[in-house]
Amino acid sequence: MKLSDLDQWLTQHRGACVATWENFLRFPTVSADPGQDDACCKCAAWLRDRLEQLGFKARLQPTSAHPLVVAERPGVPHKPTVLIYGHYDVQPADPLDQWTSPPFDPQWRGDRLYARGAQDNKGQIAYVLTALESLIQNKVALPSLRILFEGDEECGRTAAIDALSTQNPASLQADILYNCDALTVAPGRPTITMGLRGLAGFTVEVQGATSDLHSGVHGGKAPNAATVLARLIASLHDDAGRIAVTDYYNDVTDPTPEERALANATALSDTDYAAITGIAPLGGEKKFTPAERAGFRPTIEINGFHSGYGGPGSKTVIPAVAQAKITLRLAAGQDPEACYQKVTRHLTQHLPPGLKISFSEKSVAGIALKCDLKSPLIQKVRDLLAELSPQPPAFLWEGGSIPIMARLPALAKAQPLIVGFGAVDDNIHAPNESFSWNQYRMGFLFAARFLATL
Amino acid sequence: MKLSDLDQWLTQHRGACVATWENFLRFPTVSADPGQDDACCKCAAWLRDRLEQLGFKARLQPTSAHPLVVAERPGVPHKPTVLIYGHYDVQPADPLDQWTSPPFDPQWRGDRLYARGAQDNKGQIAYVLTALESLIQNKVALPSLRILFEGDEECGRTAAIDALSTQNPASLQADILYNCDALTVAPGRPTITMGLRGLAGFTVEVQGATSDLHSGVHGGKAPNAATVLARLIASLHDDAGRIAVTDYYNDVTDPTPEERALANATALSDTDYAAITGIAPLGGEKKFTPAERAGFRPTIEINGFHSGYGGPGSKTVIPAVAQAKITLRLAAGQDPEACYQKVTRHLTQHLPPGLKISFSEKSVAGIALKCDLKSPLIQKVRDLLAELSPQPPAFLWEGGSIPIMARLPALAKAQPLIVGFGAVDDNIHAPNESFSWNQYRMGFLFAARFLATL
Repeated sequence: MKLSDLDQWLTQHRGACVATWENFLRFPTVSADPGQDDACCKCAAWLRDRLEQLGFKARLQPTSAHPLVVAERPGVPHKPTVLIYGHYDVQPADPLDQWTSPPFDPQWRGDRLYARGAQDNKGQIAYVLTALESLIQNKVALPSLRILFEGDEECGRTAAIDALSTQNPASLQADILYNCDALTVAPGRPTITMGLRGLAGFTVEVQGATSDLHSGVHGGKAPNAATVLARLIASLHDDAGRIAVTDYYNDVTDPTPEERALANATALSDTDYAAITGIAPLGGEKKFTPAERAGFRPTIEINGFHSGYGGPGSKTVIPAVAQAKITLRLAAGQDPEACYQKVTRHLTQHLPPGLKISFSEKSVAGIALKCDLKSPLIQKVRDLLAELSPQPPAFLWEGGSIPIMARLPALAKAQPLIVGFGAVDDNIHAPNESFSWNQYRMGFLFAARFLATL
Repeated sequence: MKLSDLDQWLTQHRGACVATWENFLRFPTVSADPGQDDACCKCAAWLRDRLEQLGFKARLQPTSAHPLVVAERPGVPHKPTVLIYGHYDVQPADPLDQWTSPPFDPQWRGDRLYARGAQDNKGQIAYVLTALESLIQNKVALPSLRILFEGDEECGRTAAIDALSTQNPASLQADILYNCDALTVAPGRPTITMGLRGLAGFTVEVQGATSDLHSGVHGGKAPNAATVLARLIASLHDDAGRIAVTDYYNDVTDPTPEERALANATALSDTDYAAITGIAPLGGEKKFTPAERAGFRPTIEINGFHSGYGGPGSKTVIPAVAQAKITLRLAAGQDPEACYQKVTRHLTQHLPPGLKISFSEKSVAGIALKCDLKSPLIQKVRDLLAELSPQPPAFLWEGGSIPIMARLPALAKAQPLIVGFGAVDDNIHAPNESFSWNQYRMGFLFAARFLATL
């Protein structure tokens, strides 16, 4: 099918496509919240039914957490087999009071649909399924297709990959692993994601006294758990933003000059970045550019810090306990377990005498991934993306992580391809997540053209 | 009345005394919580009624916050006038799940009564009123008495003193200002509180991006508000526990060698301190003893730190906002406003570029107070306390603050006297606050003997 025919088909079917996308978003599939397990199961069943409507042989595969949606559809012989990956789970929606409309009641404002998951990753799954629908309706010759949608991506769990590696991994074998859970460098500019960072995470808790103490009676005597944890966190970086953990950068693979140039070529200006996020890109290591810091360098981020009193007015206590949630984004070459060990050892070694430190909710989700700039697949996709926009396709080394992409390519024996149409102002993982119709449309066009021309 | 007669009277009236004390504790007078304004008003009215039953002329005086309970009772001529001060408000009770019994449903376990306020300050007010009841019932010649009970001590508000200084301060004139809101150095050991620290406090908020950002996409680009606030807090002290704010110690009055020796003489051993609090007294400046640090040195304590995600599982965000509640305990000589300015200026100056910092909930509650070791009043009280125990009375320079004591002595033109019977294991300001019957009894005996022998 030609690009113009596909575009016309989408215009004609827009109402039904949007209704299906909205129904998908109404499932509150927050995988980190055990209270939403039922919503996750219902959403997985809804996806299975939708794939069966498209002529797939589809089933739910149990895992230690949320079910996988697994499906296959035989295609024309001699074409490569494509495994399509996505995740139906979403990030928690809090702080709820910052949402303009409820996170699981999708609403259009202008060109954009607002809901948790509107983009990440339900919106992108939605256009891929619409692309399949258009091709199948129009009887286009397709490659053999396999589908894998998981429900544990956003909580750092490896339930999906663990289940896959033990249960019938042969059913996943493919030539290409197509993942649409990705961003563009700028709205409207097609982008190939060439790299993803690795990820590890944990919760650290510092305990001082047995219970909170009066800050007058005990101030100057009892150590303050909040102050101690703040000082431990401060010790993780030097004043130039460099991680101060011993040997932390030892295994980092440096980018080639070409990779570095391509990464910087499409980077947002500081002003554009600030217009989107409200702040200039001044975090991280001062001696690298923002694109290099996010694409090729590891980070240690505090995702949450909670200790003591946070209510109205004041409460003059020395908190007994302080807790922080920390994630490590890893550069190519770094081992998640080794990085977890280095950081937790650093924190333990820097703890002042008398207090206790403990670690929980450990997750060593995966290594970083880097694609080969010179492969025929990447060259073909670049040509297809060039049809979609007057702007040349961009190459992105993404700061984010897709833990399953650290293991799935090896398991499926497939070449990874990561092309998505998320935009930096979609507010994923934050209040008021949204996805524009134009991004959906471009995603649809690419997915359809890619699958039709393999 | 002799000590033995007073003791016998208390034994005979124990049931009624305990019932009154328990009724007092059932009012959830959390002054920091606007939802408990009604409970505060009801408790104040209950106190007024109780004072009227004792023959006082009593009334409620409105303030900008909770009402004052003001009362007077003429006494024998030529005796000094005594103004008795206390506070009927209490600290917030959270974390509620750490209480063995509900905080506002007083319960006895062994010798101790458990409830929020069991000691601080309702338990101590309760024994003073019981002492008055015993003396009045036994027709003991008493000095002229004035009562002042406030309802805003625990939230750092100055509503009481503000109301008093503008409305009829002459009605407060007294020779002695007797305050029972104080501790002993060890359970059973009578103690004169010779000093209190001053207090100032505020909430600081650091804002980075407009909303929380994805920690992968933005990690290494957007500054992390939690990390930045942790680093700001870490910058407040050096590695030896000394406050690193410029000129912070300039105005601190050093104790005399005699004061220092007396303070150290009754200090808990590190082991005893750890047995009570669960931690050795390793906080604060390493070059001073724990008693010196709490009695004569200022501190900066983090009362709460909240930023980002704190729920179950993980949420891979860069928090946009981080907030800390901070209190400054001030040594004799330090000006609260000047200290507030120095600390907030330090935080502002250490803020990295790009972020915003703001301060709210400012409270400059009061200067420190120090009594004169050689005054006749202190000598008389020492002799009375010596009757109560085989152990000699202790002299305590308290780490805590009673903000009204920073201004009330000057307003009442009265000499301050601070004698209370709180113990370090009463868990005031913490879950499972309690007060033992023996502490109540000693407080009753001292209050009665003191008022009967003036």
